Amino acid sequence: MAKLYTPLCDQLGIRLPIIQAPMAGGASTPELVAAVSQAGGLGSFGFAYTQPETMQHDVEAVRARTHLPFNLNLFASPASGAIAPDAQRGAINAVAGYFTELGLPQPEPVRPPYVPDLDAQFAAAEDMRPPVLTFHLGDLRAERIRRFQSLGVKIGGSATCVAEAQRLEALGVDFIIAQGAEAGGHRGTYLRNPYDAMTGTFALVRLIVRKVRTPVVAAGGIMDGAGVAAALALGAQAAQLGTAFIPCPESGAARVHKERLLAAREDETLVTEKFSGKPARGLANRFMREMAGSAAPQLAFPAQNALTSKLRAAAAKAGNPDFVAMWAGQAVALSRALSAAELVATLEAEALECLDRLAALRR
Amino acid sequence: MAKLYTPLCDQLGIRLPIIQAPMAGGASTPELVAAVSQAGGLGSFGFAYTQPETMQHDVEAVRARTHLPFNLNLFASPASGAIAPDAQRGAINAVAGYFTELGLPQPEPVRPPYVPDLDAQFAAAEDMRPPVLTFHLGDLRAERIRRFQSLGVKIGGSATCVAEAQRLEALGVDFIIAQGAEAGGHRGTYLRNPYDAMTGTFALVRLIVRKVRTPVVAAGGIMDGAGVAAALALGAQAAQLGTAFIPCPESGAARVHKERLLAAREDETLVTEKFSGKPARGLANRFMREMAGSAAPQLAFPAQNALTSKLRAAAAKAGNPDFVAMWAGQAVALSRALSAAELVATLEAEALECLDRLAALRR
Repeated sequence: MAKLYTPLCDQLGIRLPIIQAPMAGGASTPELVAAVSQAGGLGSFGFAYTQPETMQHDVEAVRARTHLPFNLNLFASPASGAIAPDAQRGAINAVAGYFTELGLPQPEPVRPPYVPDLDAQFAAAEDMRPPVLTFHLGDLRAERIRRFQSLGVKIGGSATCVAEAQRLEALGVDFIIAQGAEAGGHRGTYLRNPYDAMTGTFALVRLIVRKVRTPVVAAGGIMDGAGVAAALALGAQAAQLGTAFIPCPESGAARVHKERLLAAREDETLVTEKFSGKPARGLANRFMREMAGSAAPQLAFPAQNALTSKLRAAAAKAGNPDFVAMWAGQAVALSRALSAAELVATLEAEALECLDRLAALRR
Repeated sequence: MAKLYTPLCDQLGIRLPIIQAPMAGGASTPELVAAVSQAGGLGSFGFAYTQPETMQHDVEAVRARTHLPFNLNLFASPASGAIAPDAQRGAINAVAGYFTELGLPQPEPVRPPYVPDLDAQFAAAEDMRPPVLTFHLGDLRAERIRRFQSLGVKIGGSATCVAEAQRLEALGVDFIIAQGAEAGGHRGTYLRNPYDAMTGTFALVRLIVRKVRTPVVAAGGIMDGAGVAAALALGAQAAQLGTAFIPCPESGAARVHKERLLAAREDETLVTEKFSGKPARGLANRFMREMAGSAAPQLAFPAQNALTSKLRAAAAKAGNPDFVAMWAGQAVALSRALSAAELVATLEAEALECLDRLAALRR
């Protein structure tokens, strides 16, 4: 049977140039990661908010299910420090009404650490020696990258502009994820103002492919096999898909999140900073619209994420979409309810069909 | 020799699935349109601001140069009416300092009509019977579309979301231009708030291809043959490129505009309403940044365009990029200094090379 192949497949040890995007916050469960890798793609953990012990546990769960490669992703952004009481009050007041509405106690001031210690996470990652490690929202010291590489770990970083891609190349990463503005969740912008770097996937992938020699992975708005083939046409060596995997039964996303993705008929996404403190794209809902319309203060990332945590969790539990961070890319209306294995097989078949169609356009 | 072919090529009577985007305001001269069409693409006039007599003159100039098809584009948006004196004063005060800086007399209040009469333009277009006519920023009555079609004119309209594409399909257009957020100049959004419809080309093309049966043309961020091939992979039947053609010697864009496009190394574009009254993407410059930072009032489109007209013209003449509307898409850093014929031939060769590369990925 025909198969899809790029040199990066060999470098990462995967059969297909398809990467399930890491999704911090619960969607990328060990079940999802293992199922994607077992199907021939690269399953990815989004461990930004995960303590080292849980990372260890989840990685073992994947290794018990498959011997194939997987990816472990961490956020490389420095955590914000302690916050002054009046900033806390302002940010709390801005969301307090929503807590009341859901019958929750008033939010407490948040205190660092808001997220697990990054050095401890990286130390745990070194112990685990994942086949692939990617980082997001920043860069790593070149020594750290070389250290992982010396352990046999392939390293990738996210770029949302040419300057970030060139920096990653200078640091010696094995591959660069060109993450276009269509992407759901937090994009990895770390050198530019994120609102000045809202470059669409089509333009960004081509720009980065033309300006670096490191293999490029395309991300943002890719939902089907034609999208995978188009990413390869743009010169990427693999496609990374997040939103497409959220509705899978193996994904740990909230049921209401999955249902709303599947119901979307248009690009109904917006970028908001109000859930986490950093801009992230998701399905527009009441929280995003009302908070965008107000001059409500917010805390820096990831303190704001800690502040809204109970609100998001309670809404998800109640099946109330108004306060859930329903991360989604702009092509969300192409979401499908398939198992991870079915989705990977479908992407492969569609991509091959697309290449056949393209071959027929050449007369 | 191999060639690139889609069914839309036959429908439009062109050899290559490559359309030079219509560019209102001077870039799409008869020389450019004729050169693109003669090279096998579809040259396009951007006649939004052009009086019927000039339309007639320019179309004759193309017909004297080539018997191959060309496209004539009009804006289908209703023009704004008379403006109250205090609104005029506010908008004039916001830009008056720039007029002074360039040694220009203070701007006068603007009066309708700000643009040529749309019905007169369409009547002229009916007389001319261009092989292809596209419209932008609105839709046409179904009878007008049928009338043109009965004259042998193929009709296309721009869509920036699924709803607009579906409306165009219901009206019976021959093809739909899916114009992603990467696109330079004015995008054609007419049913949604333009800022809610900033969907990237990759996502938008795929969304629209999957939701309509009418042939789709991809636009926004396409600069080279790999981009043309990627557009075809996404299911488009042609690619429309604007920015790529601006630096051509045949283009009528200001010299400073061409030079700045060729010098760009990154996505240095922003969307501004301050030049014309409607959001349009161009290379960031002093006017765009300062006007964005102020709460300066502006007139509606196209009155604001009339108000800033002399400022833009004087700056262009002086080679001063600070006040020129240097429309550009997000992949501007891939601009090349080629003649129109060289560019079309290069796009074709690169697209074929890309299809060869893709065929080799299939093992």
